[in-house]
Amino acid sequence: MKQILKGHIVHAPVLGALEITENGYLVLQDGIIEGIYPQLPPQHRDGEMHDYGDKLIMQSFADMHLHAPQYPMLGMGMDLPLLDWLNTYTFAVESRFADTDFARDVYRRLARELISNGTTRVCMFSSLHTDATWVLMEELEKAGVTGFVGKVNMDRNGKEGVLQETTEESVRETLRWLEGCHFDHIHPILTPRFTPSCSDELMAELGKIKAQYGLYVQSHLSENKAEIAWVRELHPDCERYWETYHKYGLWADHTVMAHCVHSDEAERRAMREHNVLVAHCGDSNINVSSGICPVRKMLDEGLWVALGSDIAGGAQLPMYRVITTTIRASKVRQIMDDWHTPFLTVPEGYYLGTTAGHRYFGAGDGFAAGDTLHAIVVDDSDFPTPVRPLSINERFERAIYLMEQRSIAAVWSAGRCVVGC
Amino acid sequence: MKQILKGHIVHAPVLGALEITENGYLVLQDGIIEGIYPQLPPQHRDGEMHDYGDKLIMQSFADMHLHAPQYPMLGMGMDLPLLDWLNTYTFAVESRFADTDFARDVYRRLARELISNGTTRVCMFSSLHTDATWVLMEELEKAGVTGFVGKVNMDRNGKEGVLQETTEESVRETLRWLEGCHFDHIHPILTPRFTPSCSDELMAELGKIKAQYGLYVQSHLSENKAEIAWVRELHPDCERYWETYHKYGLWADHTVMAHCVHSDEAERRAMREHNVLVAHCGDSNINVSSGICPVRKMLDEGLWVALGSDIAGGAQLPMYRVITTTIRASKVRQIMDDWHTPFLTVPEGYYLGTTAGHRYFGAGDGFAAGDTLHAIVVDDSDFPTPVRPLSINERFERAIYLMEQRSIAAVWSAGRCVVGC
Repeated sequence: MKQILKGHIVHAPVLGALEITENGYLVLQDGIIEGIYPQLPPQHRDGEMHDYGDKLIMQSFADMHLHAPQYPMLGMGMDLPLLDWLNTYTFAVESRFADTDFARDVYRRLARELISNGTTRVCMFSSLHTDATWVLMEELEKAGVTGFVGKVNMDRNGKEGVLQETTEESVRETLRWLEGCHFDHIHPILTPRFTPSCSDELMAELGKIKAQYGLYVQSHLSENKAEIAWVRELHPDCERYWETYHKYGLWADHTVMAHCVHSDEAERRAMREHNVLVAHCGDSNINVSSGICPVRKMLDEGLWVALGSDIAGGAQLPMYRVITTTIRASKVRQIMDDWHTPFLTVPEGYYLGTTAGHRYFGAGDGFAAGDTLHAIVVDDSDFPTPVRPLSINERFERAIYLMEQRSIAAVWSAGRCVVGC
Repeated sequence: MKQILKGHIVHAPVLGALEITENGYLVLQDGIIEGIYPQLPPQHRDGEMHDYGDKLIMQSFADMHLHAPQYPMLGMGMDLPLLDWLNTYTFAVESRFADTDFARDVYRRLARELISNGTTRVCMFSSLHTDATWVLMEELEKAGVTGFVGKVNMDRNGKEGVLQETTEESVRETLRWLEGCHFDHIHPILTPRFTPSCSDELMAELGKIKAQYGLYVQSHLSENKAEIAWVRELHPDCERYWETYHKYGLWADHTVMAHCVHSDEAERRAMREHNVLVAHCGDSNINVSSGICPVRKMLDEGLWVALGSDIAGGAQLPMYRVITTTIRASKVRQIMDDWHTPFLTVPEGYYLGTTAGHRYFGAGDGFAAGDTLHAIVVDDSDFPTPVRPLSINERFERAIYLMEQRSIAAVWSAGRCVVGC
């Protein structure tokens, strides 16, 4: 089937530059981008027309790190230090997902909120519960969210009897979970919570499963200084945190590492060399006082950086808010570095929240020909009256700062219209 | 007339502590708070009942620094350095307010957005246009917003022929403006834009007008380092920026100074000694890379600190967002100070965005008996399903982080219900 989206098309094929086609046409063939045109070529006039008029057609967002079972505690416990926060809220909340009915309610709601805010791709932590993880995958699939979800592995330093597995259970449940993953748009990813949560034995088993099933891996890295010291105690043989994953074959191409706030030059080099993706979570890093990640430096060094909402350490699910918080965090970093490191511009922040993440799932740059369409349609007509007609570039920038859920008139995910059709 | 508001009553009479009355009754007599009761006393059973059920009745917000004519440029130009931003956007936008029809459109919209987001008191900059300033005051008054508005004075370093007055004009128009201010809830405040915008002669005249009319004063102070250096050049006789206001009698009880990011100990002492209010604008300070204000230190020193959205340097008009950004900025400050200065807790951030500002207008602490009621009613029923029943304290905290305009079910301002009645 041929479909045409008409409107002002804005995408970010490279870091820091936008491509804009005013009153343009985006041609889809069976959900796959055929091309973008300033005028509709005659051979495409037979397509089904979606005329979005004066609205902006932009790339949708990719959220590369978030904890689905922490959604019920969004915006809570922000005054607590990390360990109290984990014990008072996180572990207690996550343990509730043994109940699949409860999981169904929460995850249905989460999936809808994600998609209606324009997040069409995710790389997401579930809890350690196999059945609830399937429920999560099913609800995401139904809502039109695509990407990767991981059943969490945790056989130590959790909460015994409440939220912890034995090593044997963790391995067995991981295999059971993998066998039951049959979804079109949501795929499994191996998810050791983080080094302190997983015994050496478990890590070794996960390494084998990764190799056997050809899976990607996601986890946490160098989020705060106490954590780094703890990992060093647990692995005296590893000079740096990243080596605790590498030792077991979990540090590899497309491994996602959340945070990396305090990764030093050597650790950052290991990321670049192994094509590890840094899921930068600026809101969370500030909320739990981890530190301000040197994102500009990482980009200059050629690292692959994308963004995560990291709910519920992050308190904002919509990625447009995560992008502006990321930009603010980069301005803070600039101030801390005595104005030596330039902040992230709006097009740069947008690139990190879109293209950089979409590439994880095999997409090309921006709205690339051959990719399935992931897009949002933004209606900015109720933003404050401007003093003069705005350029599309200015409207884009304003949309990133002022967008609300209600501004998103339509969402396309994996080539299908899933919101506002 | 006697009125009763029933619901979960939450207010912040002191910095850092909340007073909560679950299923309580707030009794109003002719718009004035009579008291808060856990049970309704028999003598008040004849009041008109506003039963808000399971909703939260909280203090409304006070926005102590914002630029009304910059509302049309909200969320724009965030990539530009301060001076380019002023020239490309600010001065061009503000100059449009010579047109009162244009002003009417923008200000009506702004006033509605303020009140529907729960901001019932403001201390606000207009532009230098007398007529548009009256329009602004009228629209605020109509919408139910109360407080102070200032016609801006600027006789140098603006944009000649576009946005600048002669000294004589500035004085004459200020007097004409003052004569025409007849509003019940919106009052004039003297508003020299900042020292670089006002000649010594103009400052001296404003000092006389202040004394003659008994007005308060608002301006900017020590926002960024280049500005401070510039002020030093302009006033070589003044050791510090604040003295350039003091010299002309403009540094006095209830003078509002926006920003104060780089005020040193001596300048901060001068604030305390003169009961000057610091309007802290955390979002703006980060957006335009001014610096991170040491708010905790100011509070420890006994300074009077309240919050401003500072649109459009700030990109967020709703004060609940300004409060969470303020908390985030305080966490950044904690990181910069190597964890020596504690961050602002949610109740502290809330106090700064409510009580600390309301006191400027003569209010007592929290919902104090004898004050006119300024309140919002928050409906959190569509927030994510919690895993267990939440305490009112937890619901309050979550409301501050997750509130949207649609969560505000009703607004009371100066004793009258103005939204959701």
